[in-house]
Amino acid sequence: MQRLGDIRVGAETISTGDALGRVTAARYVSPTGLPAFARSSMDGYSVRAADTFGATESLPAYLELTGEVPMGRAPQVALGSGDAAVAFTGGMLAEGADAVVMIEHTQQVDDGTIEVTRPVAPGENVVQRNEDVLPGDEVVPAGQTVRPQDIGALLALGITQVSVAKRPRVAIVSTGDELVLPDVTPGQGQVRDINTYTVAALVEWAGGIPVPVGVFPDHLDTQCAAARKAMGLGDVVVFSAGSSMGSRDMTAAALSGLGEPGVLVHGISIKPGKPTIAGLAGQTPVFGLPGNPVSAMVVFDLLVRPVIRALMGCVPTEFRPTVTARLTKDVPSASGRQDYFPVSLSQGTGGMVAEPVFGKSNLIFTLVRADGIASVPLNSGGLYAGEPVRVALF
Amino acid sequence: MQRLGDIRVGAETISTGDALGRVTAARYVSPTGLPAFARSSMDGYSVRAADTFGATESLPAYLELTGEVPMGRAPQVALGSGDAAVAFTGGMLAEGADAVVMIEHTQQVDDGTIEVTRPVAPGENVVQRNEDVLPGDEVVPAGQTVRPQDIGALLALGITQVSVAKRPRVAIVSTGDELVLPDVTPGQGQVRDINTYTVAALVEWAGGIPVPVGVFPDHLDTQCAAARKAMGLGDVVVFSAGSSMGSRDMTAAALSGLGEPGVLVHGISIKPGKPTIAGLAGQTPVFGLPGNPVSAMVVFDLLVRPVIRALMGCVPTEFRPTVTARLTKDVPSASGRQDYFPVSLSQGTGGMVAEPVFGKSNLIFTLVRADGIASVPLNSGGLYAGEPVRVALF
Repeated sequence: MQRLGDIRVGAETISTGDALGRVTAARYVSPTGLPAFARSSMDGYSVRAADTFGATESLPAYLELTGEVPMGRAPQVALGSGDAAVAFTGGMLAEGADAVVMIEHTQQVDDGTIEVTRPVAPGENVVQRNEDVLPGDEVVPAGQTVRPQDIGALLALGITQVSVAKRPRVAIVSTGDELVLPDVTPGQGQVRDINTYTVAALVEWAGGIPVPVGVFPDHLDTQCAAARKAMGLGDVVVFSAGSSMGSRDMTAAALSGLGEPGVLVHGISIKPGKPTIAGLAGQTPVFGLPGNPVSAMVVFDLLVRPVIRALMGCVPTEFRPTVTARLTKDVPSASGRQDYFPVSLSQGTGGMVAEPVFGKSNLIFTLVRADGIASVPLNSGGLYAGEPVRVALF
Repeated sequence: MQRLGDIRVGAETISTGDALGRVTAARYVSPTGLPAFARSSMDGYSVRAADTFGATESLPAYLELTGEVPMGRAPQVALGSGDAAVAFTGGMLAEGADAVVMIEHTQQVDDGTIEVTRPVAPGENVVQRNEDVLPGDEVVPAGQTVRPQDIGALLALGITQVSVAKRPRVAIVSTGDELVLPDVTPGQGQVRDINTYTVAALVEWAGGIPVPVGVFPDHLDTQCAAARKAMGLGDVVVFSAGSSMGSRDMTAAALSGLGEPGVLVHGISIKPGKPTIAGLAGQTPVFGLPGNPVSAMVVFDLLVRPVIRALMGCVPTEFRPTVTARLTKDVPSASGRQDYFPVSLSQGTGGMVAEPVFGKSNLIFTLVRADGIASVPLNSGGLYAGEPVRVALF
């Protein structure tokens, strides 16, 4: 990740209303304060607070009703001593008013008079000017993933266009002599390519644009050509390698040929996912993901997703959604290795429970039956049934 | 929710590769078993297990190398007693083989001979035919939100098209005399409409298609016309009501006029969000959300999102992503009311901590400064600093 340095995809300007899920490429500060005027936070009457002091149910204050301030209008009413004006939630106060009496604490005596049965302090039931935001306050930092409320905040200030990082294009190459396209009936010994599509979906989830390059046999020249083509198409290159050692070595060779510094990592200390390749060809991060789908998904989440996010300049404080659940079974592990295992979740009597989904082959159906991925810490010999684990949700 | 009965939006057939995040409208079962053939789970040699019994480092078993089974091909090699054939991870076994010896437990003696230094049991390092999925196994149930692995599983079986629920169209009406469009500089007493856009973003998050209808003043005939227009455009109608009582009553009246049974709920026991309207006009769920953005977001999450999901036939077992964190401050509450409050999260020394973000006005910036929403249970008088709370992430 350090080697990524400050490699970034470019920025583009889009409508704020279209920015959901995009990552801001600039910092936005408030050009003005909000609210722009002192506003009532209740339905009732705007008053001079001093006129209500000492008011009680048995000894109400009597105020003269001098008019109302309609929603969305400047006040046409000025309060003298002993005056009140109808106020609506979100509306302006009458000139000279400094508080609002809730309608529940008043009674209309006649057309021109109300009685107030509780005193209000100055500022009560009033949202002061600039109380929410001061001019110059940060609204959205650069590198933030835009949420519905960020759209609202920007638009509240009249910021109708925003600069966001382009979505990184991720070129996906599947390799393996045994692979056929999903719409082909596999012959003996063949399987359908699915990693192109699962990785594409993971790229989409991560905020990138998947660019499938195709399925290529385990032949070095072919893979080198595919790698070069992928370099031309993507800001990131992901190879989904075959499962055999030979196929993985070929992937490493093909990726190495793309440029300096080349392959930086060949094998990582996690399970599943050990045979992972990661590197950098010039400005392009390149990956070789293990062929088995569980490994591919775990490694994508650990390495590829953070790189896609980093290329957009994403601030690294995103909270990964997790739930905590109790294990239903022991999960053995080797110390010195980070183990990941899929779990299915259900609501038990004492809270959420996590059932490990073991599958010898780590084929895609292990993941289909799971709701998330749990992990055994690096220096632990395993986990016992009943222990709580954090489950990263899909 | 019960009144929704089995109101559903229709289904459409799309490419499986495009189905990420969509909700399946049919149940998919496996037409075949997977894997379709017994495959090696290791690089090594396929053997007859009996030929390796008793093999040790000092007394290895010597086997004759009769060839290899290339990836993606049917075996052209049949093993007699004492024979072995090269096997690749994911490849077929040689005819007559019943196990695979890992390459690490062998040594090639000469071109035609290997020695095996550890015995294997029948079936060892082999993924049996149909071990992952049997013909007729459920792959994806109806009502499931499609994840990357579901796409992979469907494609692995050659299911390249899927039937998914159409995205519900949600017509959004903003009302209030004080509202101007975001690109307009507000006059005195005016504010920019932002709820149209925050609600639209929430609809998108929920899997629906937002259909903004416009901003309308607090005038009954105008709102009734807007409501009818919204009925024509949406599978769901959401009014973002003004903040004053009069505005909310007008929303209720406009929604009531749309058809039977009409408004079913007017006011709910939560804070913020009390002035919520919910109902059904014929087959169309209709909502009046409170004007303040925090309330609107809380109520959307509690009522509108589940309805959008239900219209797609979504199974109600989705896990809402939450984190557990310790409160930094006391949060008072009234018993008999469900209280929601925005919190900002940070990593403390003893785990995640949640800082309540209080804002008198509940304006949009309260949410901008927050990472999620926590709640005080219905029958609690409040929460104390240091207590753990579950935070639903945005």
